[in-house]
Amino acid sequence: MPVPGPGYAITARVEVPASASAAGDLTVAVGRVGGVVTALDVVEGHTDTLVVDISCNARGEEQVREITASLEAVPDVRVRKVSDRTFLLHLGGKLTVESKVALRTRDDLSRAYTPGVARICQAIAANPDDARRLTIKRNTVAVVTDGSAVLGLGNLGAAAAMPVMEGKAALFKRFGGVDAWPVCLDTQDTEEIIRTVQILAPGYGGINLEDIAAPRCFEIEARLRTLLDIPVFHDDQHGTAVVVLGALRNALRVVGKTLSDCRVVVCGVGAAGSAIIRLLRPQAPGDIVAVDVDGIVHPDRPGLDANLAWVAGHTNTGRTAGTLADALVGADVFIGVSAPDLIGGAELATMAPDPIVFALANPDPEVDPAVALQYAAVVATGRSDYPNQINNVLAFPGVFRGLLDAHARDITDAMLLAASAAIADVVAEPTRSFIVPSVFDPAVAPAVAEAVRGAS
Amino acid sequence: MPVPGPGYAITARVEVPASASAAGDLTVAVGRVGGVVTALDVVEGHTDTLVVDISCNARGEEQVREITASLEAVPDVRVRKVSDRTFLLHLGGKLTVESKVALRTRDDLSRAYTPGVARICQAIAANPDDARRLTIKRNTVAVVTDGSAVLGLGNLGAAAAMPVMEGKAALFKRFGGVDAWPVCLDTQDTEEIIRTVQILAPGYGGINLEDIAAPRCFEIEARLRTLLDIPVFHDDQHGTAVVVLGALRNALRVVGKTLSDCRVVVCGVGAAGSAIIRLLRPQAPGDIVAVDVDGIVHPDRPGLDANLAWVAGHTNTGRTAGTLADALVGADVFIGVSAPDLIGGAELATMAPDPIVFALANPDPEVDPAVALQYAAVVATGRSDYPNQINNVLAFPGVFRGLLDAHARDITDAMLLAASAAIADVVAEPTRSFIVPSVFDPAVAPAVAEAVRGAS
Repeated sequence: MPVPGPGYAITARVEVPASASAAGDLTVAVGRVGGVVTALDVVEGHTDTLVVDISCNARGEEQVREITASLEAVPDVRVRKVSDRTFLLHLGGKLTVESKVALRTRDDLSRAYTPGVARICQAIAANPDDARRLTIKRNTVAVVTDGSAVLGLGNLGAAAAMPVMEGKAALFKRFGGVDAWPVCLDTQDTEEIIRTVQILAPGYGGINLEDIAAPRCFEIEARLRTLLDIPVFHDDQHGTAVVVLGALRNALRVVGKTLSDCRVVVCGVGAAGSAIIRLLRPQAPGDIVAVDVDGIVHPDRPGLDANLAWVAGHTNTGRTAGTLADALVGADVFIGVSAPDLIGGAELATMAPDPIVFALANPDPEVDPAVALQYAAVVATGRSDYPNQINNVLAFPGVFRGLLDAHARDITDAMLLAASAAIADVVAEPTRSFIVPSVFDPAVAPAVAEAVRGAS
Repeated sequence: MPVPGPGYAITARVEVPASASAAGDLTVAVGRVGGVVTALDVVEGHTDTLVVDISCNARGEEQVREITASLEAVPDVRVRKVSDRTFLLHLGGKLTVESKVALRTRDDLSRAYTPGVARICQAIAANPDDARRLTIKRNTVAVVTDGSAVLGLGNLGAAAAMPVMEGKAALFKRFGGVDAWPVCLDTQDTEEIIRTVQILAPGYGGINLEDIAAPRCFEIEARLRTLLDIPVFHDDQHGTAVVVLGALRNALRVVGKTLSDCRVVVCGVGAAGSAIIRLLRPQAPGDIVAVDVDGIVHPDRPGLDANLAWVAGHTNTGRTAGTLADALVGADVFIGVSAPDLIGGAELATMAPDPIVFALANPDPEVDPAVALQYAAVVATGRSDYPNQINNVLAFPGVFRGLLDAHARDITDAMLLAASAAIADVVAEPTRSFIVPSVFDPAVAPAVAEAVRGAS
C-alpha cells in the first residue's frame, strides 16, 4: 500500500469549539484513518469557535473521504470544505512568459518593436547564426511530447500531457536557468512529429523529447538528430541513463568493484533500458544481460524489433537464454526500469556478493525496497521516501545549460558520460545510502553543465 | 528624409578633457551632423579627464558614422566605443519563461511534478475542457508566423522573424496580461502551416497570426477557424481594421459626418485593406471604393484573385474604373494601407469638404503628413512622430484578454466592431489631433477586453 504522499495533499477548513484540545482532536481524527498531518493553521478565532485549516497528505481519494468523515465525526466539528492542494497549485497553469525589456515609453517600444526591431531582423536574415545571439533561441528549449506515454499513465494525448511538460519547464528554469516551453503535439504519427519539430526548430536552442512511447521515440530522436542543427535529447532515455550511470559509478565505489568485473542485468528494454545499455557499453562492463517481458534478450529469440535486435547483438556475450531469475544468478548489478514487483528476496539471494540493486519502476519498484535492503549492498529507487532516489532532475537542467552555453549542435556520448561522472563526483564520500546528491544540491547543475561544455 | 528615431539609438563612450565646456562641445558635435542627443552621463571623473556616455538617435548607419567622426573631430576627445542600443537590448532575446509555483522542497516537486501531477493529467484526459482551467492554455496565445512578410521587410524567413514575434509577445504581456509565445515556422507551404498550427493548438487558448503574406494568410486563417476550437486572429488584418475603424468613428465625430453619407476610398487590398473593407461593410458606409496598384477594383477588371473578386463584388456600387486620383474626387475618406508617396496636395484638393486622410503605409505614408494636414480635416498615420498614430497595440492585447476571459472558441465581427468602438470611446472628446488614445492609456485594453467579452 503506498505511503500517503504530498502528491495527494488536501487542506480541510473546519469549525471547531474553542478548546485546549481542539488541535489534538483534529490531528487524532486524521491519524486514525492513516492520514499524515503536515500543517495546522488557525484562520479565524472567535469567542467560542475557531476556524482551522488542517493540511494532510493522503494515499488517494478514498482516504480523503475517510479523513473528511473522521473529522466530521469529532463532536461539534463542522467541515466547511476540503481543498485539493495539488489542484489548487495547478489552477491557471504553472508558467508565465515575461518580457525582459521594459516597455514604459515610446522609445522603449521603438527599440523592442517597430521600427527598431527591423534592423535586428535584417541582421539575422544576413547572418542566421546571429539568432543565437539576438533572440531567445540562445537559452530556450522545447519540451516536446505527443502524449503517448505520459508518466506511467500511458497514452493520454497532447492536452493531458501539458501539466507534465509545464512542470518540466518549471524544473528547467529552477535548476538550470533554462527557458523551456511545453510543445504538446496533437499527432502520434512519427513522420508528422518529426516534420513538426523540424518546422518549429528555428525558435529553439535545443529539443527535449519527453514521454513519447517506444519504439517511436527512437526513430524520432535519430531522425531529428540528423535533420537539426540543435541538440535533441530524449530525457526518458538519456536523462535516465546519465543519472543511473552516475549512481552506479558511486555504488561500485561503495562495494569496491570495477565495472569491467561486473555482470549487469538490465530489466526493461524500452526507452530507458536501451539508453542505459548504450551508455554502459563504452565503459566496458564485464557483461550486460538485457531482460524484458519475454525473458533474456538473445539473438536467436524470435520477433526482435530493430531496437531489441541491436541490444541482442551488443549484450549477453554468453548467449544465455532464460528468465529474469536465471539472469540474476551470480549477477553483480540489477538495474530495473520495467514493472512493479517482479522479484523478491529469493532471487536477490542468488546474486554475487554485495549486489547493487536499482529498482526504478515508478511508483512501485521491481522489488520492495525494504526487502532489497536485506540482500543488497546498495539499493536505489525512483522514490523520494527511500535513500538514493534516481531522479532525472539531476541531469537534464545541467545538461541543457551546458549545451546552450556551448552553442552545441549535437549531443555526444562523451557529453553524457561526462555529465554522469559529474553527478557522481558531487558526492565526495559515497556511502550505501548516499550515492547520488540531493536534487536540491546547488552544486549539481553547474557541475553537469561544466562537464557537458568540457566534452563539447 | 526620415527623422532620427529611437529605433536607431546609439551610445558613444568618449574621453573628454575635464572642462566646463565639455558637455556642450559634445552635444554640438552630434547636432552638427543632425543627430538628436537623448542623454549624457558622466561615468568616470578624473582630475583632468572625464569619461562620458552620450546617447543619441540617428537616421541610420551613415549618420552613426558621421556622428562618430564629428565627435572625434572635437579637440582632445577620444571615442572609446559606439554601442547600438537597439542591439544591446536584443542580446539574449526579449522573453523569459518563469515558474508560477515555488519549487523549494520535495513536497513542492511532488505537487508540481511527479507524482502529484499525474492526477491533473488524468483529470484533463477525463474532461478535456479542464485544460483551460488547469494548464497555461487559459492565458496563452501563440504568435504564429512563417516569416513571409516581416514588417515591411518582406520574406525574411522564420529565424529572422523571431525578434518581431518576441516583441509582440512582450506587448501582449505588457498591455493585456496575456502570456504569448513566438511560433516561427520554417515552412511557407499553406497546408503545412495549417497542419502545424492544428498540431500545436492544444497548448494554446488562441492563435495570433502575424506577418504572413497575402493571399496565403486568408486561406490559413479561414481554414484554421473551421478546424480549431480556439479563436484565430490575423493581426495584420483584424488588428489593423479594428484600430482604423475606431479612429474613423472619432474622425467622423470631429467632422460631423455619418458613415452612411461617406464615400470611403481604401487604397491597398492586401491583408489590412481587405479586412478594413470587410469590417466597414456591416456599418453601411455610403460607398467603398477599393484601389490597388492596378487602379480601382471593379468586377470587370481582368485577373482578379479570390480576394479581389470578393472585394469587387462588395464595393464600388457605381462600378467605376480608373486611377487612385479618379477615386479620390469627391471622396470623404481616404484609408491608405499600401505604399509610400502615392498622392499629394493636388489629389487631396479634389476630395469632398473636410476630408479624412489615414495614410498608414509604414514607415513612409502614402502622402506626406505635413502636406495632408494642409488639405484634410483629420490626418492619421502609422508614425509616432505625428498625432493620431494608428497602432495595432491599441487592439490585440485587449482583444485576446477578452477572448481568453470569455473562453471564446471563435472571433466574430460583432466582437471586432465592439472592440473598435471601445477604443474610440476611450477618447471622451475627440479633436482633429486626438482621435485615438495613447497606447500607454491604461483604460484601453480593459475597455477592449470588456467589449469583446460582452459581444461573446
